[in-house]
Amino acid sequence: MTTGVRRRMGVEERRQQLIGVALELFSRRSPDDVSIDEIASAAGISRPLVYHYFPGKLSLYEAALKRASEDLAGRFAEPHEGPLGARLLRVMRRFFDFVDEHGPGFSALMRGGPAVGSTTTNALIDSVRQAAYEQILSHLQVVDPPARLELIIRSWISLAESTALIWLDGRRIPRAELEVQLVQDFAALAAVGAAYDEELTALLRRVFAAERLDDPFGDLAGRLIALASG
Amino acid sequence: MTTGVRRRMGVEERRQQLIGVALELFSRRSPDDVSIDEIASAAGISRPLVYHYFPGKLSLYEAALKRASEDLAGRFAEPHEGPLGARLLRVMRRFFDFVDEHGPGFSALMRGGPAVGSTTTNALIDSVRQAAYEQILSHLQVVDPPARLELIIRSWISLAESTALIWLDGRRIPRAELEVQLVQDFAALAAVGAAYDEELTALLRRVFAAERLDDPFGDLAGRLIALASG
Repeated sequence: MTTGVRRRMGVEERRQQLIGVALELFSRRSPDDVSIDEIASAAGISRPLVYHYFPGKLSLYEAALKRASEDLAGRFAEPHEGPLGARLLRVMRRFFDFVDEHGPGFSALMRGGPAVGSTTTNALIDSVRQAAYEQILSHLQVVDPPARLELIIRSWISLAESTALIWLDGRRIPRAELEVQLVQDFAALAAVGAAYDEELTALLRRVFAAERLDDPFGDLAGRLIALASG
Repeated sequence: MTTGVRRRMGVEERRQQLIGVALELFSRRSPDDVSIDEIASAAGISRPLVYHYFPGKLSLYEAALKRASEDLAGRFAEPHEGPLGARLLRVMRRFFDFVDEHGPGFSALMRGGPAVGSTTTNALIDSVRQAAYEQILSHLQVVDPPARLELIIRSWISLAESTALIWLDGRRIPRAELEVQLVQDFAALAAVGAAYDEELTALLRRVFAAERLDDPFGDLAGRLIALASG
């Protein structure tokens, strides 16, 4: 990441460069193992100059995490066109791209990293979860969700996080299968929850009705019938 | 919790009493809001005496968390008799009992509490998850699980955690419904995962076959058929 050509950067430009260098390092190894010296070296500047822009490793880590959070939240945006299952699958692919790019840093953060428990870090994680939640609501065209729908969506988001973490730990299952599986998990959890809520049942019938059999939701419905009647 | 009768306790007895008092306080409010003074007062001893047994709040918190972890792991034990769905439902009831008893402390811990990121705390959380994982494997009578079964069980455990956390935040859904729902979620996630794995499919057919229709698994199977064919 060292730039060959030396030139004077403006304050904001230098800050952004440092954040980019730090994010790259914090992504590839556990942030606990990344030193300010390394970040300075990768950025081609001195250690004291790093401290001129960021008072310590935690503040640089939080700035890097903020950039990563905005990046991830941005990947949830998906046009409101076509079957819902296919939309969710495209989002899952971009989510796994992100997890793949930031693997060790993502694991360390979600399993309890150096800045876990910091108010800033927790707020950033929550903001990404909230962005995911609001995207799904908007695709379901629901403005004021019943408590049970909120539970299904939020708990499925945590299922997606834990599935990604387990995948990172050895990558023993092809990620493409997990991306489809998570879309189907959503349908399955919604199907279970719908039994307790007529409004939710009506919503799901509408969603299922619009799916094609070769899309993840439609495919699941067929397989659940086969399994239950086998 | 103050004892009316003053008498001299032995070292270990006093430590155990302090852990019990601290666990009670850490459970009922966010541990960040509990002071050593309060713990001392509730235990009927002086603040310096608390420090005589525990060097600081973190060590007392970790000791209390250790006791709570062992308590929770103990609640997973369930006789290997009768339908699997009914066994899992009894465990879910005891899990929600625990969550109910320790609500604010459980939330604070799982959402990023005072000791999150501490090696001891993370190890205790992991030990409880591992105990839950091993219990489920033993009930499924599987010794060497394929990667996909491990994923289903571990990700379902995280689903149970997040469902409990969402429940605690307002208790807008009756816990008895969530206990049944989580059992059915397990069946649903297993059904989705089984599509990719013949060994898992065979296992599930065996499990489903042993269920009665009025048990959570059997009930789910019927409803999934109805939903998919509606």
